[in-house]
Amino acid sequence: MDSVWDDGNAVGYLDQRALPRDVLRERATSVDAVVEAIRTLAVRGAPAIGIFGAYGVAMAARLHAGDRVAYERAAALIRAARPTAVNLAWAVDRVLAAAPGAELDEARRIHDEQRDVDRRIAESSVELFPASGNVLTHCNTGPIATGGDGTALGCLVAAHRAGKALHVFVDETRPLLQGARLTMFELREAGVPCTLIVDSAAAITMQRKAVRAVVVGADRIARNGDTANKIGTYGVAIAAAHHGIPFYVAAPRSTFDFSLESGEEIPIEERAAEEVRIAEGDAVYNPAFDVTPGRLVTGFITEYGVLSPPYVDAIPDLELRPRLPLPVA
Amino acid sequence: MDSVWDDGNAVGYLDQRALPRDVLRERATSVDAVVEAIRTLAVRGAPAIGIFGAYGVAMAARLHAGDRVAYERAAALIRAARPTAVNLAWAVDRVLAAAPGAELDEARRIHDEQRDVDRRIAESSVELFPASGNVLTHCNTGPIATGGDGTALGCLVAAHRAGKALHVFVDETRPLLQGARLTMFELREAGVPCTLIVDSAAAITMQRKAVRAVVVGADRIARNGDTANKIGTYGVAIAAAHHGIPFYVAAPRSTFDFSLESGEEIPIEERAAEEVRIAEGDAVYNPAFDVTPGRLVTGFITEYGVLSPPYVDAIPDLELRPRLPLPVA
Repeated sequence: MDSVWDDGNAVGYLDQRALPRDVLRERATSVDAVVEAIRTLAVRGAPAIGIFGAYGVAMAARLHAGDRVAYERAAALIRAARPTAVNLAWAVDRVLAAAPGAELDEARRIHDEQRDVDRRIAESSVELFPASGNVLTHCNTGPIATGGDGTALGCLVAAHRAGKALHVFVDETRPLLQGARLTMFELREAGVPCTLIVDSAAAITMQRKAVRAVVVGADRIARNGDTANKIGTYGVAIAAAHHGIPFYVAAPRSTFDFSLESGEEIPIEERAAEEVRIAEGDAVYNPAFDVTPGRLVTGFITEYGVLSPPYVDAIPDLELRPRLPLPVA
Repeated sequence: MDSVWDDGNAVGYLDQRALPRDVLRERATSVDAVVEAIRTLAVRGAPAIGIFGAYGVAMAARLHAGDRVAYERAAALIRAARPTAVNLAWAVDRVLAAAPGAELDEARRIHDEQRDVDRRIAESSVELFPASGNVLTHCNTGPIATGGDGTALGCLVAAHRAGKALHVFVDETRPLLQGARLTMFELREAGVPCTLIVDSAAAITMQRKAVRAVVVGADRIARNGDTANKIGTYGVAIAAAHHGIPFYVAAPRSTFDFSLESGEEIPIEERAAEEVRIAEGDAVYNPAFDVTPGRLVTGFITEYGVLSPPYVDAIPDLELRPRLPLPVA
């Protein structure tokens, strides 16, 4: 199920808010509609919003052909639609750097690369998981979230296909229930055994259900390994460390922000109180992400292999690696 | 707002499931109705279900006057309505031990004692909280949950009334949202500044919002300090320890189960998948409680004062303390 695509005149997307009940395929025909789809989380998942943003910028190039100022203004709007995930800014900048007329080709290349990257991430991870047992994940990092096979969830599905008898505990992921709605849906489709839990049951699950590994995705990773990801990831990482369970982050190189020394520099988006509160007027603190310190991360699963500590060496090294060739189709 | 009461012919209760939207006062006129109200969480909160169960047993004594076998069978049904909180079994046994005809007096005494105990718990806690700053709580432990002024929440309200400028972060407490529905409601009524968060935001809140203390209630405490409480408490305790934040459990002596050496012996109730899942057929692991190891508890706030480690000494000592006299009305 593709979550984002280009159809020549518009940018198509699956409205993720309606899943799993309804499969709604929508079209954004303006820059405003692209921005709105990202802001409202109709399109979400760090890699997916990167690809969607890239297609949006390519559409803006077409709509504003010959007017570079208007084009760059449109790209800036898309770039700013959500602040935390770096993939969006990275993808927008790549399309902006493309030669005039080549924007859509560049966006398609970003999408093709993501599919390849997801496959490579899954390959990198095979050794990390046991032949059988329980694993735990948070939020949604499957095909819907990436435009490819998924990052963290792609690893688990690949391990299942390789014959490992894994069972996945899925955090429901409040407030928007991406785990309950999207991850359970994707695991069911892939035939991977899975069990849903409330987020706050992650600790007892680790304590009583012999969880062998935790794997999550990421929205932005700093040079020291500090990782911004969906709210709740930090608590899961603390609990995993407390139980001596390995905690992996699966993410493409495009999720690493090599310009940041630490997670303190990552902007954390705060979303509307209405996502959480029941009674009108109640004050709500609703950060959409948190930052897990690099010292709690056992390894980063990337398309270049698994990065191990010390990350202050491994992540700058990653920046220097050559771009991977796309496989010959 | 009383959450449970006796009206002579029936046991009255506030239907907690309807709050904060609707204030529904109901009457249970049979043992089955008492059991049903506890099972469905219309009445919840360890001390409140103890008092409600006590009134229920007193009603059963009246309904089965002269038939001890039927009376004891009814009491056993009430005793088994929920397995984790020990207050229910403790209160049922106290009424069962009362002289024939004195059951309702004993139930009322349990209720009066709880009001007194709540006041004493709050007094015990005054020194523990700073003059100002942020604290965090999980689930609901206010008047609704205890039949008195509350345990953990009672401490916070008392500190507020004593002039401390505390601000409370409230975990929403999935799946049934006792924090979002009941604790926010009670803090608002009491005029205590408070902010709602999703459960999984507790860790980032501790990291970024200078949380000075965590205080929660309990459903059953073993001799070594292992504490069963609402699902999610264990994760909050791990995160508090990770951030060096004191973690307090406020509970009356009736919540201590002196017959248990450790939390491994506490039965953990698992509730229906429907409380959590979105898609029909999804597997769900839905424990209603978890067990926080005593080593993560900074102190137990009781009506006899604050217990400090080592709990293997302090808790058996608590068992030997004389019953507190009720204040002269």
